[in-house]
Amino acid sequence: MTLDQLDTPAALVDLQRMQRNIARMQARLDSLGVRFRPHVKTSKCVQVMQAQRAAGARGITVSTLREAEQFFAAGETDILYAVGIVPAKLPQVLALRRQGCDLKLITDNVDAAHAIAAFGREHGETFEVWIEIDCDGHRSGVAPEAPVLLDVGRALAQPGASLGGVMTHAGASYELDEPEALAAMAEQERAGCVRAAERLRAAGHACANVSVGSTPTALSARSLPGVTEVRAGVYVFFDLVMANVGVCAPSDIALSVLTTVIGHQADKGWAILDAGWMAMSRDRGTQKQRHDYGYGQVCALDGTPLPGYVMSGANQEHGILAREGEPDREIVRRFPVGTRLRILPNHACATVAQFPEYQAVSVDGAVATWPRFYGW
Amino acid sequence: MTLDQLDTPAALVDLQRMQRNIARMQARLDSLGVRFRPHVKTSKCVQVMQAQRAAGARGITVSTLREAEQFFAAGETDILYAVGIVPAKLPQVLALRRQGCDLKLITDNVDAAHAIAAFGREHGETFEVWIEIDCDGHRSGVAPEAPVLLDVGRALAQPGASLGGVMTHAGASYELDEPEALAAMAEQERAGCVRAAERLRAAGHACANVSVGSTPTALSARSLPGVTEVRAGVYVFFDLVMANVGVCAPSDIALSVLTTVIGHQADKGWAILDAGWMAMSRDRGTQKQRHDYGYGQVCALDGTPLPGYVMSGANQEHGILAREGEPDREIVRRFPVGTRLRILPNHACATVAQFPEYQAVSVDGAVATWPRFYGW
Repeated sequence: MTLDQLDTPAALVDLQRMQRNIARMQARLDSLGVRFRPHVKTSKCVQVMQAQRAAGARGITVSTLREAEQFFAAGETDILYAVGIVPAKLPQVLALRRQGCDLKLITDNVDAAHAIAAFGREHGETFEVWIEIDCDGHRSGVAPEAPVLLDVGRALAQPGASLGGVMTHAGASYELDEPEALAAMAEQERAGCVRAAERLRAAGHACANVSVGSTPTALSARSLPGVTEVRAGVYVFFDLVMANVGVCAPSDIALSVLTTVIGHQADKGWAILDAGWMAMSRDRGTQKQRHDYGYGQVCALDGTPLPGYVMSGANQEHGILAREGEPDREIVRRFPVGTRLRILPNHACATVAQFPEYQAVSVDGAVATWPRFYGW
Repeated sequence: MTLDQLDTPAALVDLQRMQRNIARMQARLDSLGVRFRPHVKTSKCVQVMQAQRAAGARGITVSTLREAEQFFAAGETDILYAVGIVPAKLPQVLALRRQGCDLKLITDNVDAAHAIAAFGREHGETFEVWIEIDCDGHRSGVAPEAPVLLDVGRALAQPGASLGGVMTHAGASYELDEPEALAAMAEQERAGCVRAAERLRAAGHACANVSVGSTPTALSARSLPGVTEVRAGVYVFFDLVMANVGVCAPSDIALSVLTTVIGHQADKGWAILDAGWMAMSRDRGTQKQRHDYGYGQVCALDGTPLPGYVMSGANQEHGILAREGEPDREIVRRFPVGTRLRILPNHACATVAQFPEYQAVSVDGAVATWPRFYGW
């Protein structure tokens, strides 16, 4: 199979770029002296996880219990489920642990901590739980200095639970685009998480793991004293949002959507594509960034970006290709019906979620199909 | 299975509301004297299509060839593929037609029309093609008065193709919210499509089918002389965008996402949910409408809306529930960890695309699982 033979739209992975992205992150975290636990929510693909592991990653981070089940079935046992657990999901967690999966949970509140411990006692299990720390106010977690941190720690010291560590995610880093600000955010993420661990240890709790991470901070941290591991997900593919943040170049983006021109509105300078928001997702993450790419950057079939040409609009299965600024009066001649193009996505995690499979493209042009799962 | 036992997040379909929506649209189009060909791109679910058919729908509209294949396998033969065909997809179309599927194509350009006819001659097949008409400038199609309309008609008169009709979609209707403006848009959609058919007939072409439709115009048209059929998709579930357009009430919305509270940020008045953008989609279709619902309207487990409470933000697997305006200082007491809620979506087509299955909830509370497919 080659690019010319694929049905469109298709999710292409440039294997050379993916391997380069994997090697870059691993080398960086190796040099910072921390373990790397990639977040596999981005790819949901066993082949991608195996490439991360082969490069030196140890353990994985998941965002759903389905990911835990699927990657455990593929041989990974060291799994951190990085979304606050609700008691109703504990039977599913118990089943995984009893099969030999070293599945670790997180929480940021006393109620869930009590419920986990109670369920553990009831079933003769000890659930390892890490406490989620809020380092930047963007989502969930306990503030490093909050009194409740020690309450959660105490609740997890009951039989049925054990406190395995602390973890945080500086999601606010996505809103930055200056190296100094990114380095400062990485330090804020590190310092907050380490401080929480120190408070827990001072209160008598072992707190073995100190886990931080986001793609921007992982690539911007200058040193990570006190941190034991880093998590990051989207770096494996990168995307236009990350290019705007400044932690990759557009030429690092390993994911694109292959599409075909199906018609034109010549007077408007539009070509109509068979990739709409169902293929690209509705993610408009570059809208508020320094360069708004619409629904994506248009590239030639060989991956060369066509500067100024973006997907300016999208219906479910229709994309509108247009030039930024002045309409292109030569659009029909430039992109005749049947022309194949690639679109770089705003947000790789959202775009790949629309596809049941990847088309993994080697440097020699050979294409392999890699399955991707979804759902919960 | 009942609502209390379902894993979250889950895509719930309120069957009573769905049946009411189906009956309402069918009765309306019956009274207007036109055939109804529902667009099944919304549900991609055989059970939903069967309910539409049982109510009187005849034929279906699809947005991908995978939909055509899946619904043909489920027994539907009269299928309109309503995205402009590219020649590379013709082998797949040919295979379906040879299996007995009455699959009809669309195009809006001479190049594709020639390619279809040539491929038909080469394979001893006559492809039925409808010409796509642009009635509102929002996407693809030939303007009703454009000279090229007759060129496309002539190209489709060659052996290997046959001109089956004209079709249009007033997607611009989604931007309206006044009954008079909607009725005027429905008339514009009708008049443009009928005018195109008349021009083709005057040039000697049979043009048996005149197909129009969008959910807002289908529910707003006052009469449809010259139209043979109407298409609509999202009406089967409805959503907050359609409520803002004014063609349904929030109490008509048959789709919701079941979610669980996993934590809080009490000082901000936030509850954190286990449904993020992966469950709701990134569709922010209400952002520019009269009421911006964020990522969705929050409802109690029984479906009763909780006015003023919306999903104000979303990460991949985290939603932020907040009150519009002043933060709710009682958020922890009001929605403790483990609370189950339903979220009404901005755009049903985008939200359901994130789920491998529906949980179809009967009026007696029984839940049946209906599969949904995706991909191309």
